[in-house]
Amino acid sequence: MTKSKKIIGIDIGGTKISLLLTNGYGRVLARRMIPTRKGAEARRSVREMSAVLADMLKKHPVKVGELLGIGVGVPGPVDAARGVVPWSPNLEGWKGIRLKEILARRFRVPVYLDNDANAAAFGEKVFGAGKRTRDFVYITVSTGIGGGLVLGNAIHRGASFCGGEVGHMTLVPGGNRCKCGKRGCLEAYASGTAIARRLRERLKSKLPGGFNGMKRRGPITAELVSYGARRGDRLCIEILKEAGRYLGIGVANLINVLNPEMVVIGGSVTRAGSYLWKPMLESAGKESWPVAFKACRIRRTSLGDHAGNLGAAALVLQNRNERGHRRLA
Amino acid sequence: MTKSKKIIGIDIGGTKISLLLTNGYGRVLARRMIPTRKGAEARRSVREMSAVLADMLKKHPVKVGELLGIGVGVPGPVDAARGVVPWSPNLEGWKGIRLKEILARRFRVPVYLDNDANAAAFGEKVFGAGKRTRDFVYITVSTGIGGGLVLGNAIHRGASFCGGEVGHMTLVPGGNRCKCGKRGCLEAYASGTAIARRLRERLKSKLPGGFNGMKRRGPITAELVSYGARRGDRLCIEILKEAGRYLGIGVANLINVLNPEMVVIGGSVTRAGSYLWKPMLESAGKESWPVAFKACRIRRTSLGDHAGNLGAAALVLQNRNERGHRRLA
Repeated sequence: MTKSKKIIGIDIGGTKISLLLTNGYGRVLARRMIPTRKGAEARRSVREMSAVLADMLKKHPVKVGELLGIGVGVPGPVDAARGVVPWSPNLEGWKGIRLKEILARRFRVPVYLDNDANAAAFGEKVFGAGKRTRDFVYITVSTGIGGGLVLGNAIHRGASFCGGEVGHMTLVPGGNRCKCGKRGCLEAYASGTAIARRLRERLKSKLPGGFNGMKRRGPITAELVSYGARRGDRLCIEILKEAGRYLGIGVANLINVLNPEMVVIGGSVTRAGSYLWKPMLESAGKESWPVAFKACRIRRTSLGDHAGNLGAAALVLQNRNERGHRRLA
Repeated sequence: MTKSKKIIGIDIGGTKISLLLTNGYGRVLARRMIPTRKGAEARRSVREMSAVLADMLKKHPVKVGELLGIGVGVPGPVDAARGVVPWSPNLEGWKGIRLKEILARRFRVPVYLDNDANAAAFGEKVFGAGKRTRDFVYITVSTGIGGGLVLGNAIHRGASFCGGEVGHMTLVPGGNRCKCGKRGCLEAYASGTAIARRLRERLKSKLPGGFNGMKRRGPITAELVSYGARRGDRLCIEILKEAGRYLGIGVANLINVLNPEMVVIGGSVTRAGSYLWKPMLESAGKESWPVAFKACRIRRTSLGDHAGNLGAAALVLQNRNERGHRRLA
């Protein structure tokens, strides 16, 4: 890998598409954002993506032969071999778009499509906290909770491309309703959505707590809860502690089942910092087997806001390596 | 693999050691049992094991060169490379015995030691339900609940040799006390121990239920609960249903996280039959992602009482293949 080699990493989210140009070491060279169009306009998004990419490659500039490939992360279970956008509640109208084929034909480089959490997991493997780690679990905690498993240095996709759906482990049988339709999922206790809902519930029930004394700013979101906690609001601190405790139980279950070397946690909710992190670590330690917990480092993502894009870019490097490996064998 | 090749599979349990001679297809050629001696007498057990093995090989008879190797399954997390018996609450006095070395010197064949649940999982892979399956989870439900993960056709041992400890997933935060010291583990709800304890509690609390009308036979065990259920006792049926429901949640969590092709369930508690199995299947379906559940077959072990021994024997075949594979690569 030389520095002159470039990779494109595209992160397709429910509201925006982020396109990033990086080199083989994860240095960010350029980044652009466009809105995610839905329904009948989905294909317009694909055309816009192509146009922005062409413009980025021209402006940077990237010479012919320097671009190694394009990696794309999308929500939902992806059949990576086929490279077709799957059904996802957040990508209405996109299902069946042959994105791999479209981008490969236009830019004449290999294109790899994968689930966004799988991609982020592999981003940690290639550029981030999991660099020298064979087996680790990546968990992303934001609106929802997703995850990816890196086992034996490769993404574990599972039988129907939905391995790593850690957010839907049942932690409380018959507990809180989750947006997936089930009850008691980890996501229903520790996601940003769950944190915001908890504050709404507590404010309605008018239980004692300091939040009422703090000036309310804007709608109730997980960010507001974090903000409140940093300002010393006891109710917000308590809510983050509770969410952290459940997240820790989820982490512990993964440690007990997989005995991984590392758990990497990313996603916007981790910005709540130690209010969430400390109770998470505490309950992860309490709820997992000592010999398995001791063998496992628990780390925050080191890729920050670029995790999704760098993960997508990492798909290109992973697949190159896999092919190389096969040739050698 | 020809029919004339033989393998020894040894299953070391808390009360007895079972030694089995098989061929490469899992046919049982001979089987012997000796008691597991503890404490200061542990080394006597090792001598007895050697003597019984020598006798078996002579009586069968197995000619020089026909014996491929010896596989040994022991409880507790095993460093398979070192082949030393680990600490286990059920094998007092055995810790540190270099079983691999002792048997290899005496019988001049390769010896492989592994955790018993890992071995049983690989037994399913080589001889049983998981034969043509790349990724599956093996769960054994008896006094406790253990498990092994076969991922990418190999046992996933984990960072400190305790991968697959599925019995200690927390299912009910702050719930029933488990013998591991934690609370709310799957094992505390669905193991044989939990099933027997539940009947004892219910009998003490004198809640309505049919069991009081049934003639009690012997101590209260999970077998008695199964017996009661078969005789139509409503309380016993209800207890098995509850255990099955929790087992199903555990299975669902594994399906959501790993998206395996198959879950194989073994262990004495599965003898309770459909009283446990039906509610297990029902809750596994309800608690897992439809696309992951649909991709996963849930099977009972097909190896019956020989699962432990055949699993140990399978270790020999696995390790031979791994070496073969490395040579080819």
